[in-house]
Amino acid sequence: MDALAELKQRDREILLLNHSIDILRWDQETYMPERAIEERAEQVALLQGMVHDRIVDPRQEELFGALGMSEKTKMGPSGVDDETRGFLREAFRRYSKQVKTPKELVEELAKTQSLAQAEWVRARKASDFKLFKPYLAKLVELLKAYAECQGYAESVYDPLLDEYEPWMTTGELEKILAALRARLVPLVEKIRGSAVDAGAAILTRSFPADKQRAFGLTLLRAMGFDLSRGRLDVSAHPFTTTLGRDDVRLTTRYNERFFPGAVFGAIHEAGHGLYEQGFGASLRGSLLASGASLGIHESQSRLWENLIGRSRAFWTAFFPKLKPLFPEALGDVDADRFYRAVNAVSPSLIRVEADEVTYNLHIILRFTLEKKIFTGELAMDDVPAAWAVESEKLLGVKPDADRDGVLQDVHWSMGAFGYFPTYTLGNLAAAQFFTALKRKHPDVEEEIGQGRLDTVRDWLKEHVHARGSVYPAQDLLAHVTGERLNAGHFIDYLEKKYGELYGV
Amino acid sequence: MDALAELKQRDREILLLNHSIDILRWDQETYMPERAIEERAEQVALLQGMVHDRIVDPRQEELFGALGMSEKTKMGPSGVDDETRGFLREAFRRYSKQVKTPKELVEELAKTQSLAQAEWVRARKASDFKLFKPYLAKLVELLKAYAECQGYAESVYDPLLDEYEPWMTTGELEKILAALRARLVPLVEKIRGSAVDAGAAILTRSFPADKQRAFGLTLLRAMGFDLSRGRLDVSAHPFTTTLGRDDVRLTTRYNERFFPGAVFGAIHEAGHGLYEQGFGASLRGSLLASGASLGIHESQSRLWENLIGRSRAFWTAFFPKLKPLFPEALGDVDADRFYRAVNAVSPSLIRVEADEVTYNLHIILRFTLEKKIFTGELAMDDVPAAWAVESEKLLGVKPDADRDGVLQDVHWSMGAFGYFPTYTLGNLAAAQFFTALKRKHPDVEEEIGQGRLDTVRDWLKEHVHARGSVYPAQDLLAHVTGERLNAGHFIDYLEKKYGELYGV
Repeated sequence: MDALAELKQRDREILLLNHSIDILRWDQETYMPERAIEERAEQVALLQGMVHDRIVDPRQEELFGALGMSEKTKMGPSGVDDETRGFLREAFRRYSKQVKTPKELVEELAKTQSLAQAEWVRARKASDFKLFKPYLAKLVELLKAYAECQGYAESVYDPLLDEYEPWMTTGELEKILAALRARLVPLVEKIRGSAVDAGAAILTRSFPADKQRAFGLTLLRAMGFDLSRGRLDVSAHPFTTTLGRDDVRLTTRYNERFFPGAVFGAIHEAGHGLYEQGFGASLRGSLLASGASLGIHESQSRLWENLIGRSRAFWTAFFPKLKPLFPEALGDVDADRFYRAVNAVSPSLIRVEADEVTYNLHIILRFTLEKKIFTGELAMDDVPAAWAVESEKLLGVKPDADRDGVLQDVHWSMGAFGYFPTYTLGNLAAAQFFTALKRKHPDVEEEIGQGRLDTVRDWLKEHVHARGSVYPAQDLLAHVTGERLNAGHFIDYLEKKYGELYGV
Repeated sequence: MDALAELKQRDREILLLNHSIDILRWDQETYMPERAIEERAEQVALLQGMVHDRIVDPRQEELFGALGMSEKTKMGPSGVDDETRGFLREAFRRYSKQVKTPKELVEELAKTQSLAQAEWVRARKASDFKLFKPYLAKLVELLKAYAECQGYAESVYDPLLDEYEPWMTTGELEKILAALRARLVPLVEKIRGSAVDAGAAILTRSFPADKQRAFGLTLLRAMGFDLSRGRLDVSAHPFTTTLGRDDVRLTTRYNERFFPGAVFGAIHEAGHGLYEQGFGASLRGSLLASGASLGIHESQSRLWENLIGRSRAFWTAFFPKLKPLFPEALGDVDADRFYRAVNAVSPSLIRVEADEVTYNLHIILRFTLEKKIFTGELAMDDVPAAWAVESEKLLGVKPDADRDGVLQDVHWSMGAFGYFPTYTLGNLAAAQFFTALKRKHPDVEEEIGQGRLDTVRDWLKEHVHARGSVYPAQDLLAHVTGERLNAGHFIDYLEKKYGELYGV
């Protein structure tokens, strides 16, 4: 067997193990009996240890050596086809990260994350940052150590961001967010000054869960999500996970007094799911069967959820299917009124409840604080106060309680610093992809208005999904849209849509 | 670390891996999307290979050597406590079986089982034994080779039986079954001659599935099955599986036109489930947290399903809870009529539909043929004809089609020869345990009649469940009931109960 074939066989085993772990985790979030958690954690830890051992196996170093892979050639060798280059880049990237991190640090991080997450739950309940602070401080210390192990050219934040958005630097990200902020803050100001009431109150009428589920499945089918290769279940926190080549699972949650949660959640997760179901035949079952980055992955869920799912055309087609399911709640509502309601803008404290316009300000807030925490500009004690200042500046509101501010998100307790920005990168990339799609298919909105979503799905599949992680995110964007990430498309889209909705 | 502690740590990892495999399999039978099967098989195979490697790891041999374990001391060392002795006996037994079997044979068996099972499905559908025959022949050949690797003193069937009923020999089994048969066949003859109609037709009225599920859960709670450490789901073939110390999952299936299936199925599986939830604290998480044998495991499910669940006392307590759920189907039925219906006896072709009396004749038939197949007395070509002859002799009926005879059960296609007898061993042990229980608690049937099942549950937990596989099955029986397995208790029970029901 040559070195490449052996490396691929080893990758295959790692993937099978990783998917096995994902099955255990999916079960944990959906069906596992409550008291089973203790042993489940041991099972997952054992399998994760096996994955780690396989990745850092000394034989891997020999194989990479034989294939000419080193830090200097980390983007992949030249003179090979794109897939081989992508495979070697991604495999070496995975190896290189793990091999640079001492096993004790990996284990200490894992342990601290578990403890911190449990403490975050308590602290959030008590709305008391002080309880969480020592755990957060410990996590930051360990992640700084991790960043030092990985090394960086400019910012200590670079290796953190790179975990979720490979190859993007903090400097690049700052430029993108600055461009967005410059136009977003004035837009929010204008909307805040508008006298228009979007009528969102209709969405808090009574919507029976079984009907919500039935409608969600109707939308999944219309989007082309293949239910013979996937499922939709319920979990406390919605997610999408891939348990095998032909096994992509979505979850949602039902709130009978708030319509948007489950349905837009299902569209969002199905956007991720279509990506996972759409990898090209030659990539299936390898590490290239994954999103190009979290930002690109999020672009797919956001494109479906917002650019399609919150569009006038979409509800022109699907409101007539929705209304008969909820005769009481929607008897006096028409498609236009519904469209306006699901696009209500209102600056608020909680990220996951934010509308399409203000959402990214929540992300900018978090990124600003994360960076300062890691560069040492912001001390742990001062984080809640800094949160309030930034919130006031960006959103015009500030939290009275830690629960509604610094303790609202789970991410930091999981050590996921560098993760938040990918949500905004996803929003921006979604608009950029959709602009390119409309350039090619100028009539696509008319088709959507007739309930036909196949042009969108097929275009995304061909240009994004089928390519998996063969190309780095920015190369993929450039390849498909003609340019690297550009916040202009998203802000143009917002100004047009919400200018019309709010008369601003 | 001393040798015993190291062996226990290794056992712990094997158990965690085995439970992980069981999670993958549970998911496969319950929620997995249909097209995901291919990769799931690869995931399971990879994890199974890892288990095998751990069991035959040369370090294991060193550890057993250091602990004085060898073929000569395979029942465990003396001078240690019962648990340690049991642990070493079971760990060495597992090691010894695997190490004697060449990996190629293990792999060939696994592959042939997969192919044979798929072919069995087709052959059964076509009702054509000829299609299945070559696969069955191949399996028998491989299992003969397996038996030769394991070695045996008397019968080539011994190592097969020992897979499911450790330490029992074919000779012992034959004596037990002969004693049973001698009294069972005349009893069936008498019942066949009775003019009594049990009125089983009421069980095929309409019973909505959601109500069946609700009633099943009521019974599970009454039995003391802990739903915070377990679940009840739906699968095509009902089973119980343990995915962790605090994670025992039952499945059932609902047929709206046949009441007994789901409800007696749920009681049966919960009988297994209570065993799995009841292992003693010091055994939890080790290989001693398992049934003493399949026969003993089956004794728990059968005791609950038949000796409790089909008793007059049980329905005196629970029919009043059942009737209001099915006002249409049971409006004209009372507890006595219902009790008679669920105990209807009728010799028939299909094992899984057989009543409590004739069930064991189906097992004797299969055991008779299995033994002849492995000793070479029965050629593959002659199996269907031999089936018809035995069926006529034992049950007075014979199949017209392979589907209703030799192709009805999945077991042979899985290579599970030696498995069927454990069903009858379970029936016999159930009656023997119940006799001992009644000796200690003479009023237990009155309690059951009041809906109180705690005496039964607590007695079984203390005497059977808590002991896991610390003792070999026959030792456990002798320990608890004062004698090794004795068919007399079961046949006494049948003669009394069915004598009264059928006036014979």
